[in-house]
Amino acid sequence: MSKYGRLASFTAAGRKRFGLVNDRGLVDLSGRTAGQWRDLQHAVCEGSLQELVERAAGLDADFALDEVRFDIPLAAPGKIICVGVNYPDRNEEYKDNQAAPTNPSLFIRLPGSFTGHQQPLMRPPESHQLDYEGELALVIGRPGRRIAEVDALDHIAAMTVCNEGTIRDWVRHAKFNVTQGKNFDASGAMGPWIVPYVEESQIADVALATRVNGETRQSDRTGRMIFSFRRLINYISTFTTLQPGDVIVTGTPTGAGARFDPPIWLEPGDVVEVEVEGIGLLRNTVADEVA
Amino acid sequence: MSKYGRLASFTAAGRKRFGLVNDRGLVDLSGRTAGQWRDLQHAVCEGSLQELVERAAGLDADFALDEVRFDIPLAAPGKIICVGVNYPDRNEEYKDNQAAPTNPSLFIRLPGSFTGHQQPLMRPPESHQLDYEGELALVIGRPGRRIAEVDALDHIAAMTVCNEGTIRDWVRHAKFNVTQGKNFDASGAMGPWIVPYVEESQIADVALATRVNGETRQSDRTGRMIFSFRRLINYISTFTTLQPGDVIVTGTPTGAGARFDPPIWLEPGDVVEVEVEGIGLLRNTVADEVA
Repeated sequence: MSKYGRLASFTAAGRKRFGLVNDRGLVDLSGRTAGQWRDLQHAVCEGSLQELVERAAGLDADFALDEVRFDIPLAAPGKIICVGVNYPDRNEEYKDNQAAPTNPSLFIRLPGSFTGHQQPLMRPPESHQLDYEGELALVIGRPGRRIAEVDALDHIAAMTVCNEGTIRDWVRHAKFNVTQGKNFDASGAMGPWIVPYVEESQIADVALATRVNGETRQSDRTGRMIFSFRRLINYISTFTTLQPGDVIVTGTPTGAGARFDPPIWLEPGDVVEVEVEGIGLLRNTVADEVA
Repeated sequence: MSKYGRLASFTAAGRKRFGLVNDRGLVDLSGRTAGQWRDLQHAVCEGSLQELVERAAGLDADFALDEVRFDIPLAAPGKIICVGVNYPDRNEEYKDNQAAPTNPSLFIRLPGSFTGHQQPLMRPPESHQLDYEGELALVIGRPGRRIAEVDALDHIAAMTVCNEGTIRDWVRHAKFNVTQGKNFDASGAMGPWIVPYVEESQIADVALATRVNGETRQSDRTGRMIFSFRRLINYISTFTTLQPGDVIVTGTPTGAGARFDPPIWLEPGDVVEVEVEGIGLLRNTVADEVA
């Protein structure tokens, strides 16, 4: 049972819903709030996550966890900005004799490149180099431009877990930019839920791990990030106005499949788990896409 | 007077509207269609551009051109995918002794990085390296994944003109990816309108020019693009499902300010015009942003 509440978007009995995850399943809040919030994204924009958690407290679950399909928590964030190299060891893996970067490398992912918890990551027919990248993602709750680091955490509405799944050879398919390798439909995942942000200790130095078929491949702590959460919010908001519902995916630790020799790609039948301490465990299978 | 019709999004008398541009001004269609279409984006999704043009034919203008504020034609495309190096001379400017690329380099821009026709491009306090890039943009009308080149043009709903304004030093602010230099709020522009796609001759080999204070800086023809419109739609839809309202910005010719020696950046007071033959002339001023 989460101290802070866990809010999920899900499909059950043929309808998209949202609600609170408790010990026994899911409390359906979409049916109980008379259209006050269309979906979780709307609730984030209204600053209502805490109210949702309180409304659901003590209520019985409407659905068991195994009778719903988890959707990505926010269906269509205005922007999903992802951070490249952001943990010390991982940067060293690039072995290009460059000093540590002074600014974070950023790219944008489209919402369609993510699927929900328990859904298969799709391996496309164009490439078998499907790779995982476990990350913590921030959901923005308050708008802002050029947000000072000292104020940055006040702009977070919630956190979720992300598998920033990548088609590795398509990341370098063209001369520069990783766009295509990071944006194959349903190649990554987000979820299972969002946890409302209440205090810094929820993210300041929490454990992050990625396991493939039970074997730990990535393991680090957010306290070791090269660019802190405060710095990321400050830097990104220098050029773009952050809006409620925007998502920042904050970078992955060392240990992606591409870094093994030889590389180890994900295959149909694999189970990938990304776990962020206190936030959640995102589990996905892998399936071949039929084009 | 355009043979194919010109549909604009604009603000007049304090309200956001859309309509047809004719010889005398703007026919307001938002007031005449009883909410059938919320905006131009909705009309694109409904496949209704031709119907809008026909409804407005022969009607008197409701507003003169100089009494409206042009907004970007589609306020919030699901995705705006931009193509890097895509004209032969421009690629040679990189002088890195690499062969011509086999695949287009792609990056994503956020809607907020664009402003409308006649609005100022914003030069941020963080950098004075504001540069222009004139381009033709395609608006997608029919969804598709892995669209064959032979079918690609059937997925185009309309075209518009884009100044893919760039904060040049922020394009290389981090180790890789151009995200931040391409996404400063209101650093680029789109418009003035969209022209419905009817036949290939509208885009196949049309002239594209960029002028700064009347001096031609970029001048080329779309027939010389390295990656054709068909190839771009085919390639991009390999990884992401194209949806109605999505925008593809198809790359700029040689002659951006960064390529001069010394570079020539845009400054407050400059007037930048991007003109695409048969589609439109996008004109913007430049202003310093007050942070």
